Amino acid sequence: MKQYIAQNKERFFDELFSLLRIPSISAKADHKEDMRRCAERLAALLVEAGADEAQVFPTDGNPVVFGRKTVDPSARTVLVYGHYDVQPPEPLEKWRTDPFEPVIGPDPATGAEAIWCRGANDDKGQLFMHLKAFEYMLSSGQLKHNVKFIFEGEEEIGSPSLPKWMEENKELLAADICLVSDTTMISDKVPSINCGMRGLSYLEVKVTGPDKDLHSGHYGGAVANPINTLCEMIASLHDADNRVAVPGFYDKVVELSAEDRAQLARAPFDLEEYKAFLKIGEVRGETGYTTMERTGIRPCLDVCGIWGGYTGEGAKTVLPSEAHAKISMRLVPNQRSSEITRLFREHFERIAPPYVKVEVKECEGGDGFLIPIGSDAYKAASRAMGEVYGIEPVPARGGGSIAVLAEMQKILGIDPLLMGFGLERDTIHSPNESYLLSQFFAGMESIALFYKYYPAK
Amino acid sequence: MKQYIAQNKERFFDELFSLLRIPSISAKADHKEDMRRCAERLAALLVEAGADEAQVFPTDGNPVVFGRKTVDPSARTVLVYGHYDVQPPEPLEKWRTDPFEPVIGPDPATGAEAIWCRGANDDKGQLFMHLKAFEYMLSSGQLKHNVKFIFEGEEEIGSPSLPKWMEENKELLAADICLVSDTTMISDKVPSINCGMRGLSYLEVKVTGPDKDLHSGHYGGAVANPINTLCEMIASLHDADNRVAVPGFYDKVVELSAEDRAQLARAPFDLEEYKAFLKIGEVRGETGYTTMERTGIRPCLDVCGIWGGYTGEGAKTVLPSEAHAKISMRLVPNQRSSEITRLFREHFERIAPPYVKVEVKECEGGDGFLIPIGSDAYKAASRAMGEVYGIEPVPARGGGSIAVLAEMQKILGIDPLLMGFGLERDTIHSPNESYLLSQFFAGMESIALFYKYYPAK
Repeated sequence: MKQYIAQNKERFFDELFSLLRIPSISAKADHKEDMRRCAERLAALLVEAGADEAQVFPTDGNPVVFGRKTVDPSARTVLVYGHYDVQPPEPLEKWRTDPFEPVIGPDPATGAEAIWCRGANDDKGQLFMHLKAFEYMLSSGQLKHNVKFIFEGEEEIGSPSLPKWMEENKELLAADICLVSDTTMISDKVPSINCGMRGLSYLEVKVTGPDKDLHSGHYGGAVANPINTLCEMIASLHDADNRVAVPGFYDKVVELSAEDRAQLARAPFDLEEYKAFLKIGEVRGETGYTTMERTGIRPCLDVCGIWGGYTGEGAKTVLPSEAHAKISMRLVPNQRSSEITRLFREHFERIAPPYVKVEVKECEGGDGFLIPIGSDAYKAASRAMGEVYGIEPVPARGGGSIAVLAEMQKILGIDPLLMGFGLERDTIHSPNESYLLSQFFAGMESIALFYKYYPAK
Repeated sequence: MKQYIAQNKERFFDELFSLLRIPSISAKADHKEDMRRCAERLAALLVEAGADEAQVFPTDGNPVVFGRKTVDPSARTVLVYGHYDVQPPEPLEKWRTDPFEPVIGPDPATGAEAIWCRGANDDKGQLFMHLKAFEYMLSSGQLKHNVKFIFEGEEEIGSPSLPKWMEENKELLAADICLVSDTTMISDKVPSINCGMRGLSYLEVKVTGPDKDLHSGHYGGAVANPINTLCEMIASLHDADNRVAVPGFYDKVVELSAEDRAQLARAPFDLEEYKAFLKIGEVRGETGYTTMERTGIRPCLDVCGIWGGYTGEGAKTVLPSEAHAKISMRLVPNQRSSEITRLFREHFERIAPPYVKVEVKECEGGDGFLIPIGSDAYKAASRAMGEVYGIEPVPARGGGSIAVLAEMQKILGIDPLLMGFGLERDTIHSPNESYLLSQFFAGMESIALFYKYYPAK
């Protein structure tokens, strides 16, 4: 594969860049046409890579791209999952380059070459590695498996349409393993394979005080300010141990055994490096757990956005009518997203003081999941990455969520295998998202080797 | 005056509307040209109304308009203060009409005719009454006083330039009383005269966690979220009695005697009506004080604006780098704005946890003040308004702030007299600001009668 990359690099970039230039932002309704364009471009790339067929399927939301190559009906089938939608690029002023015009350039901190663009890693860059590893295996006559591809356009908004579409297309999607590159590894010196991901409950809350904005001089001190009230309500959502103070929140959380915690603690982690990377003076999390545990095996609650009152230039003295926040809760097995969403809603409505009204709107949700480490697929991935990186990958728990993979386990009975090649430095979901060329190429090599080591029968 | 109004009403509207159409928003730097245009229009209107001269003076900020009419050098001089700048109109989507295109129309709730426009009341509408009362007194040969006018363009941002300009023009501004219409009365059935106003400290705070926006899945639970932290810090700014929990905040607050409180309690107030007007289930304020006292004689702290993270459409899962808030504190005699600003800054920096950095920026400030009730000017205003409204006005304490009037007392030695004709229904600083025609005309009549009853020598 190394040689194939060297010979075809420029074409790879051209093809990937044609995807990256399409602002396929699923969170924004006015990008519907971009979603369609991106799906069609992907289908074309699938056929160019050697798929027997590739189709763009409509769904209730954005289209799903499905493609397949049948090599041997009696062989095992690998289902590759990825998503072509991306996060909104805001805040725009923090980008050093145009968020939708990919460029290759050095990392200002390390000098390492990377692709800079929204989606360079998450997930266009990572799914593209699969297209090219497949192309290489097929064109070099080494492909022994049947391969199917499913690329959706709603991962960043919680995959609302895909479960229904999977239900309706179970036969089409039948496979032995689902290969996914949409996560990070610990570092490019310490490869890791995710053996679990967190679930998600994402809600938007609105606190309303008076029915109109008021002069803060005439009313301040006598009328509850909904921003102050929202702040107080949010502050009350954690207790002194930084545990989420929603009654029932931890009821279903699986406490890991000392042995399991020791196994996870094998992953190297340097707290000082971590703080220095983030430029923070201190970490903060649930009492009694390490930083890695806090993002891997423990749930949490974060305010992802807040707004209310006057946020423009200068000093406007207003006691506003409304205050808003977007709140995300990351969940662990066996917390159910639907139950946590309900518990949060009930709690938030219950703690609303009599001087405000609250509204809670559900935005997105999905359950977490665990992946068996002893499987053929895990072993093949571990051997493949070990060969590329020169060191055996560590099993790790991902803090993020790919809600739809838990659904896939339930609907199709297929376990996901998370071979992710992102790094923390890639700052996905943030300005200046990028993807190191070294990881981009190492990912392709690892995937090609996965096909080599994963038994075809 | 009544007859004069009836004969000239259409011209009055045309003149006032020419001021209202200029978006003289002092909080926004890109409105400099509008400020200049508005100042020049005002100077022209002063001369048309009969001033001997009117000049637009440059300052370090927006220009000051000064005009005067000398009738009798041995007579008393009345200095009229007003401001031609307005608050930003946002949120724009809540306006029923264009915020800078005045229209006359009925109040949807009561049917009473009003002028609808940003600045219709605050303060273009109210200062305009002074131009026309002056014009009437002069043209009808009744004016016995010398009159000076000073109109500034920075009241809504705390009058940063006017004190220095007043220092440099003390002689020009020499007067016996400063007449101001920039406040409200209790209701159009219960006229009142403000005998004190609150001071203001307005600050902007910024809380920074990690130096970049992070994926809330990868870091959530382990890295402090600056929005959560800001909410906790804001929540901690009030204690269980809704007192401001900044150490030293109340040290200089003058506690009123039981007698003074009883005097202020004469003003009629219906809590149920108040709650119904604001559509709130409960009021909220400092334990031990009535609603009127909470806005009149007690200081308070409000968040006027808050923002951070993702505030667009849909669900973006981000652990943001920064969170911001604009915080206003209304002050009472003898709290000094400069001292309170310092106390707040020190407190806010002190309570910042080690996992965030905070910045506190001062935006605006000014002291409160009290006005002697026994003066000639107060008596003349009381008699004038009593005659127009058929009931003796009540002395009241205004909750708002006109920072520059305390400065004027100090620099020029002139007491302000606050004859305000606004009503709570006018929703100044909010969408759909308006000014009842009945108040607009009653104000002109009251001002004309003030000149009649205020001794000229």
